Amino acid sequence: MTSSDKPGNAADAPAETTSVAARDWATAAADPQYRAAVVDLLGALAYGELAAFERLAEDAKLAPTLADKAELAKMASAEFHHFERLRDRLAEIGEEPTAAMEPFVAAYDGFHRQTDPSDWLEGLVKAYVGDSIASDFYREVAARLDSGTRELVLAVLDDTGHAGFAVEKVRAAIDADPRVGGRLALWARRLMGEALSQSQRVVADRDALSTMLVGGVADGFDLAEVGRMFSRITEAHTKRMAALGLAA
Amino acid sequence: MTSSDKPGNAADAPAETTSVAARDWATAAADPQYRAAVVDLLGALAYGELAAFERLAEDAKLAPTLADKAELAKMASAEFHHFERLRDRLAEIGEEPTAAMEPFVAAYDGFHRQTDPSDWLEGLVKAYVGDSIASDFYREVAARLDSGTRELVLAVLDDTGHAGFAVEKVRAAIDADPRVGGRLALWARRLMGEALSQSQRVVADRDALSTMLVGGVADGFDLAEVGRMFSRITEAHTKRMAALGLAA
Repeated sequence: MTSSDKPGNAADAPAETTSVAARDWATAAADPQYRAAVVDLLGALAYGELAAFERLAEDAKLAPTLADKAELAKMASAEFHHFERLRDRLAEIGEEPTAAMEPFVAAYDGFHRQTDPSDWLEGLVKAYVGDSIASDFYREVAARLDSGTRELVLAVLDDTGHAGFAVEKVRAAIDADPRVGGRLALWARRLMGEALSQSQRVVADRDALSTMLVGGVADGFDLAEVGRMFSRITEAHTKRMAALGLAA
Repeated sequence: MTSSDKPGNAADAPAETTSVAARDWATAAADPQYRAAVVDLLGALAYGELAAFERLAEDAKLAPTLADKAELAKMASAEFHHFERLRDRLAEIGEEPTAAMEPFVAAYDGFHRQTDPSDWLEGLVKAYVGDSIASDFYREVAARLDSGTRELVLAVLDDTGHAGFAVEKVRAAIDADPRVGGRLALWARRLMGEALSQSQRVVADRDALSTMLVGGVADGFDLAEVGRMFSRITEAHTKRMAALGLAA
């Protein structure tokens, strides 16, 4: 038997680096570093959803009509249900959800504090941008997860996209007054800049999560790949903004 | 054929006044005054739920821990789903939900403006009091409605009671510092006073709804019965507050 015949051989790097996606949670989590990375990921996503709930609910107050208010409230409520699923998953794998979320509170709160919408349109653009970036990130990360975690992430992803109503409203506002487009384009750029800045802070602070992202765990990205992921998300954002009439 | 043999004879008052609860919506709504009253009721409940969602989400910011924040967010989300059911019902019976809600915006917004909690405990007491009064009112009104509307009101009612967690927290705070009890007792009294004041404003403003409540529509209350309903709700509130250690 040659070494290439041995299944699961640690020296068998190529096979190893494509295996996490094929494993279930119990098998994958036997690696304490992978487990810690997933706990970080679930904690970060959970607090992100809870913070999004809170901010969307607050931004709903800026709505010019009851129907608009109800739309933003609906999005907020959807985020809350995502939070519940992620929190329940943390509990299911024996983690204290609050402890898993705590490390990410400062980054999200910082993001929201720096991007407090000053009017309804800024709130709509923020809802749309936030929802879209979250979807992109969920989709990017899903492929690198064990089957159980991936299923959850995809289920939450499948339920995003509530911000579509925002597009129509923002378009109408720009049609009515093209100067609005310039202001909102700057706003969208600021949102993305702040999101990247906070993400980098998280990557710098959280060893397990970053290690997974930069390839220290089987199936993770290498550092260049992390950069490419941020690029893809930024490009998708730029395209969406242009389609919305917000060429920055 | 004598007049007493004629079914549906307008002179046949006793039979007429016990019949709404036995009718389905289509039959009951043939009476335009009953229909208008139910549209008012659904509009009032729907906006009440939407306003409650918004305020609970805002009060969640006062939470001392992430777990507390999640509990209040859960309540807010439940209120939003009540709103959805009530709004969908309005649409189903061919009414514009926004138009049905508009007449009640001032009363609810006035209530919330007058009862902005200054801290987490006041927010908890408000959540508990609001949830309990809403349950009591839904239960009182359900028996006077046609079968379709009653079913909806009972379904929404069945899903209330999310505020139970508040009781434990408030009790613990009073145990730790009995002076807190005095302050919160005054607060609870103010909440009830403001709720009654806004309710009376609504009763005075909305003919169709009030007429149903005071007995102008078959199966409605008489004026004394409306007074007794407010009394029962106030008494239940007072008992709950005493049980909570808030004897005002």
